[in-house]
Amino acid sequence: MQEIITPSELLAIWQGNRRLTRKVIELFPEKDFFEFSIGGMRPFSGLTKEFLAIAVPGITEILGGEIKEFNDTFEDLKTKEDYLKLWDESTEKINELWPQFTHERFREVHTLFGQYTSSAMESITYFIENEIHHRGQGYVYLRALGIQPPFFWERQ
Amino acid sequence: MQEIITPSELLAIWQGNRRLTRKVIELFPEKDFFEFSIGGMRPFSGLTKEFLAIAVPGITEILGGEIKEFNDTFEDLKTKEDYLKLWDESTEKINELWPQFTHERFREVHTLFGQYTSSAMESITYFIENEIHHRGQGYVYLRALGIQPPFFWERQ
Repeated sequence: MQEIITPSELLAIWQGNRRLTRKVIELFPEKDFFEFSIGGMRPFSGLTKEFLAIAVPGITEILGGEIKEFNDTFEDLKTKEDYLKLWDESTEKINELWPQFTHERFREVHTLFGQYTSSAMESITYFIENEIHHRGQGYVYLRALGIQPPFFWERQ
Repeated sequence: MQEIITPSELLAIWQGNRRLTRKVIELFPEKDFFEFSIGGMRPFSGLTKEFLAIAVPGITEILGGEIKEFNDTFEDLKTKEDYLKLWDESTEKINELWPQFTHERFREVHTLFGQYTSSAMESITYFIENEIHHRGQGYVYLRALGIQPPFFWERQ
């Protein structure tokens, strides 16, 4: 039986999306990254913290790491450059951990961050969906700031 | 070898996302659905037309239907109710066509709408990502209108 999606394809989808999110971070003027918002929503720095708090910590827990409460504080992140540095470190860490995701592992059920129970496949799909969703909000922020966002299909 | 995601799981992810998008459509006041926008972007009715133009026409082409140019005109759609009606018809149609997606079929490469070449798996993943992305924009519109959007994890 052929697979409809392989582990390496799922990684490629995620990292392609992460590259697009990185472009969006880069496009924000420094001040707006931390301050601009619409309708009382978080600025894009806040959304980026959420992505960072989910990605590596999430897969680390799935792979048997210590269960911790969800924490998107990141007090050390002061500038956009700090975010981009941690982003790139997360990219490497995801690639490094990914080979541990065997087929069986995608079916394992975990309670992430001590509260969200689902299979690894569902969790990782949800991580990607959540990033696309909030990045879509970032596109509106950029447009409202008069900045052209990247094409949605740009994943290089 | 276990699959990391099955065809029926992929359908469940898509239809869960489509249910969430339907809730977002419902939450827009009639006038704002057609007129409200930020930063020169399309109103949510325009984004909804894109979803409708992609979903059933896209999978119909993948499954061997006639190749047509992408067309999101939908001149007959005048009210939010019209959109919801076509949305529900599309939901049924997707469920009806889905059993034709065999494992082999997800690997087939097609040129959709006469211009986008990728495997069926990549195309369908992209349809879902595109909907999540633009729906995220709809969330900002709702917030800017002072309307609380549904929780992102509500898929029932």
